[in-house]
Amino acid sequence: MTDVGPTESQTNREDRYAELAVRVGANVQPGQLVDVIARIEHAPVARAVTREAYKAGASYVDVYYTDQHIRRAMIQGAADEMLSWTPPWLLNRAKQVGDERAAVVALTGDAEPNLLADLPGDRVGKARMLELAEESNRQINEQLNNWTVIGVPNVGWAQQMFGEPDLERLWQAVEYTVRLNEDDPVAAWRAHVARIGKRASALNDLQVDEIHFKGPGTDLRVGLLPESRWQGCESLTADGIPYVANMPTEEVFTTPDLRRAEGFVRSTRPLALYGRIVKGLEVRFEGGRIVDVKADEGADVVKAQIETDETAAYLGEIALVDGTSRIGQTGLTFFDTLFDENTTCHVAYGGAYAEAVEGGVIEGVNVSNVHTDFMVGGPQVDVDAVTRSGIVVPLLRDDVWQLPE
Amino acid sequence: MTDVGPTESQTNREDRYAELAVRVGANVQPGQLVDVIARIEHAPVARAVTREAYKAGASYVDVYYTDQHIRRAMIQGAADEMLSWTPPWLLNRAKQVGDERAAVVALTGDAEPNLLADLPGDRVGKARMLELAEESNRQINEQLNNWTVIGVPNVGWAQQMFGEPDLERLWQAVEYTVRLNEDDPVAAWRAHVARIGKRASALNDLQVDEIHFKGPGTDLRVGLLPESRWQGCESLTADGIPYVANMPTEEVFTTPDLRRAEGFVRSTRPLALYGRIVKGLEVRFEGGRIVDVKADEGADVVKAQIETDETAAYLGEIALVDGTSRIGQTGLTFFDTLFDENTTCHVAYGGAYAEAVEGGVIEGVNVSNVHTDFMVGGPQVDVDAVTRSGIVVPLLRDDVWQLPE
Repeated sequence: MTDVGPTESQTNREDRYAELAVRVGANVQPGQLVDVIARIEHAPVARAVTREAYKAGASYVDVYYTDQHIRRAMIQGAADEMLSWTPPWLLNRAKQVGDERAAVVALTGDAEPNLLADLPGDRVGKARMLELAEESNRQINEQLNNWTVIGVPNVGWAQQMFGEPDLERLWQAVEYTVRLNEDDPVAAWRAHVARIGKRASALNDLQVDEIHFKGPGTDLRVGLLPESRWQGCESLTADGIPYVANMPTEEVFTTPDLRRAEGFVRSTRPLALYGRIVKGLEVRFEGGRIVDVKADEGADVVKAQIETDETAAYLGEIALVDGTSRIGQTGLTFFDTLFDENTTCHVAYGGAYAEAVEGGVIEGVNVSNVHTDFMVGGPQVDVDAVTRSGIVVPLLRDDVWQLPE
Repeated sequence: MTDVGPTESQTNREDRYAELAVRVGANVQPGQLVDVIARIEHAPVARAVTREAYKAGASYVDVYYTDQHIRRAMIQGAADEMLSWTPPWLLNRAKQVGDERAAVVALTGDAEPNLLADLPGDRVGKARMLELAEESNRQINEQLNNWTVIGVPNVGWAQQMFGEPDLERLWQAVEYTVRLNEDDPVAAWRAHVARIGKRASALNDLQVDEIHFKGPGTDLRVGLLPESRWQGCESLTADGIPYVANMPTEEVFTTPDLRRAEGFVRSTRPLALYGRIVKGLEVRFEGGRIVDVKADEGADVVKAQIETDETAAYLGEIALVDGTSRIGQTGLTFFDTLFDENTTCHVAYGGAYAEAVEGGVIEGVNVSNVHTDFMVGGPQVDVDAVTRSGIVVPLLRDDVWQLPE
């Protein structure tokens, strides 16, 4: 039993963080319904986000708390057919979030990253609310909501990262990555959004047809669609509200042609996936499809996941990050995709972001209930672009961005 | 930020408690959907209840966590018309709990009893999801669900009770009141249910027309309906599933005729109400209606509450408890109605329990979205029954039950 109330100093820290998430991240508009998704361990920040959202003029803030222990009990105790069931009221809730064009603030940061480690991997992989994931994908692809995801420091996460529960160190790392250490974090974000936006523009000007990753255990070519567009930090809803979907974010990303991935790739970072840690992941692609999965640990979770639907085993995202990113600069592995994907280049199998394609969900764009990023970049991995006219342009060497900025 | 994971010894304690709530309280049936309602501070017990419910054969356990800090932010930040709004998806959830004939386990035990104390009482009183309360009342009156309410010890609650965060002492008190200190708590509950059931039978045999409370500051007569039936610990769903709706419970209770309450009454215990503590409550009735409310603290919350709907200011329950109850024996004030109402006699303004009336919701039975118990009994308060033939029968003197047992 615990007291989850914040102390005075936590309040200040959490309020500043919440303000950034509400004003810059989700960019909550006056009169908007706000949906907050949090684990119970995130309560201090969920509460601060709620207060800041009302300050920004939210009409109502609905907080949905989840608990991994409840999920663990379900995986252990429920019948097979219930593993992927969506309670109808949760689907109803998700639909209302879309219909109302709500702002969404999702909190991540696993308090017990190994909680599901002793459970059968196939059950863990299947335990996902499929209808809810479909609805969520639809809303993202139709760009209905201004949303953001932020990470909430907690003791268990700090333990996972540092081998000791050094919560203060984790807070400082997170504050650095989201620019809360700046005197004016909002201004710092504006400058950052502009810089990464320029990088996306340069890639779009290049007319990239293919990205080639080459390094130890990796020789992977990923083809783009003629309609693929590189994106920076900022997104726009269908109604024209700008928002920053991830904090931190350092990537430029786009949607590949799901039919065009050839070769093999070795993941360069461990991957926290559904309460398991996948280590030493190696994946082989043929004709866009994952045809072989190996790992030192956790291959079963990945294998179960890519069988979830017809295109789960195909790529849906490709993202480039250089070594100058604030997350990379910390030298830390966060064991959380929100952070680790911003240390280095990554690809994701599963559903694509339609906003990164001119024309949205066209042929070649992956629509899937899965979206799992895994890290493939690093100092030893060269990244080249091949343009539509066949010119090879180096993009990253030794983690350094090669295009002029 | 806190680690809400249970320690090994807590696990045992919480598992035993959860087993009692699942097997004896809600009496979860194989294949049933189970709805758990908890505050985030109750997570260790909510988790244990979930595990025990799956062991009992639950098809799915859905846990809905609430957080009083989110409620506080809403009361401070939302527009007037949103205070009593029910998010449609929550109403949808409640309806499915009824439609599916789910088992329900509700957890109470306020971690920060004074959290709303500095907010305007009228807003606190109005901040209640009206549509949800209506739906919940309907389900209780139609006896759709087998349900139970238990209290979850936590640091804030212990602080409120003892002036220090003595969680162990609170756990031991709670374990005593719910008979978890017995070698075989289930057998102890069977004996207890039988004893209180006999008391209810005796009162039904008496054909009580009126209950008269008389003591310092109190002279109140409450009339019953000819169809009023006294009830003990055990209830039955419409489908015939027995359950114990409150743990602990020591009361025999019935539904009065809402038109028949005359006189005045002084509450004998403080009352925790919507995050406020009401102290020194004095209420006067005329023709069944509350016509005057005074209190040393918190009268505004009561006043706002009884204006919520047309019959909120009328009685809906009358309950008799003698001084031999385990809760009374602890000598403690729990500042939680689930416990304090079982120390001594009480009445409730607001909605009645239709199960305590032959014929259900007939004329004279209160249907209201409010149901607030307040304590009116004690060693100095004499309680008499007046039978339909006009005989006065002493029921309680000096907190001692006067009928043969």
